[in-house]
Amino acid sequence: MKILIVGASGRVGYQLAQALMVQGHQVVGTYSRHQPDLPTTVKLDLHQDVSEMRPAMAGIDAVYFVAGSRGKDLLQTDLNGAIKVMQAAEQSGVSRFIQLSSAYALQPDRWHEGYLKHLTDYNIAKRYADEWLMQRTNLDYTIVQPGVLTTEPATGEVSLDETTLGDNPIEDVVSLLVAVLTADRVHDRVIMMKQGHQPIATALKKLSA
Amino acid sequence: MKILIVGASGRVGYQLAQALMVQGHQVVGTYSRHQPDLPTTVKLDLHQDVSEMRPAMAGIDAVYFVAGSRGKDLLQTDLNGAIKVMQAAEQSGVSRFIQLSSAYALQPDRWHEGYLKHLTDYNIAKRYADEWLMQRTNLDYTIVQPGVLTTEPATGEVSLDETTLGDNPIEDVVSLLVAVLTADRVHDRVIMMKQGHQPIATALKKLSA
Repeated sequence: MKILIVGASGRVGYQLAQALMVQGHQVVGTYSRHQPDLPTTVKLDLHQDVSEMRPAMAGIDAVYFVAGSRGKDLLQTDLNGAIKVMQAAEQSGVSRFIQLSSAYALQPDRWHEGYLKHLTDYNIAKRYADEWLMQRTNLDYTIVQPGVLTTEPATGEVSLDETTLGDNPIEDVVSLLVAVLTADRVHDRVIMMKQGHQPIATALKKLSA
Repeated sequence: MKILIVGASGRVGYQLAQALMVQGHQVVGTYSRHQPDLPTTVKLDLHQDVSEMRPAMAGIDAVYFVAGSRGKDLLQTDLNGAIKVMQAAEQSGVSRFIQLSSAYALQPDRWHEGYLKHLTDYNIAKRYADEWLMQRTNLDYTIVQPGVLTTEPATGEVSLDETTLGDNPIEDVVSLLVAVLTADRVHDRVIMMKQGHQPIATALKKLSA
């Protein structure tokens, strides 16, 4: 497939691009300032209008949105930027959209727990981006919600649809993001994840139908 | 009617409370830190959970949301705070909801014009609050979108459904907010306003049915 990764110069996006290329996909990485070291890149600034984003969607089979401002530009990047990319995808006939979100982004009653209580602004931005994807688009979506991202070594094992917070090595998040591209039970679905004891492929197969 | 004003200690909210009381309404003003000099007030912090906001809705016939953080807390106050108040109102059986928004909040293709280009973060917060009110609630809403608020003397005259930006003396915005409470053609409607040449009551009557 031809895949567009929005945020390909980020810590998740860059690894995701490598992993998708290993699987034989053709990857186009977006960047705004720092061009990632990838065979194919396209400039896409999340401050642009939707119409300016559409050219990047030409021939694309699936979009990954893994961009983030790390708290510096939540309204324009994490919230409105994400929604504009959704709109550009829909207007361009791209139907598959995989969004990296965050644990409990859609459950504000959990935002007082643990490390989340320091991330309310971030959670609000992610919440309304996720809500828009689910309720206001016809995109064939998967929303992946990990807990804390760490640089620990991959375990290859996860726990899905979790009800408690946890950590996630970035490499495992990347493996799950790759796996949901071709998995069956992930369409129009929110998948919360943390490090666990099931191989990723097994955990995805065990999701309720 | 018994009216709840969220943001009653603000520059619009305080004048609105006075104007509604003159009309014979019973007004309850919310505050978080600075308690307004009104006969009846209730503490309502926009950082609270929806469930904590519900008690303020008891016996209320209509809610005005005129709170704003002046750019300091857009995600938690102007966006998520507004949406939580909508949810508390709906859950409490209050159906009428009047929201103070901002010119072109729902038209991002106009955000590069004039003074708006300095207010992108604000416009994003207002946009998604307005969108939620229109699309995700069953509230009987009116969204009022003035241009620049000024402290100029009231003119009593406006232009509605405008297609260019303009100024609005706060007193005129307050008069319009009061008028939409009992006007006919304002339900489930967004009203853009600026200073103009029609008396407010006339302008409201001339809105398309």
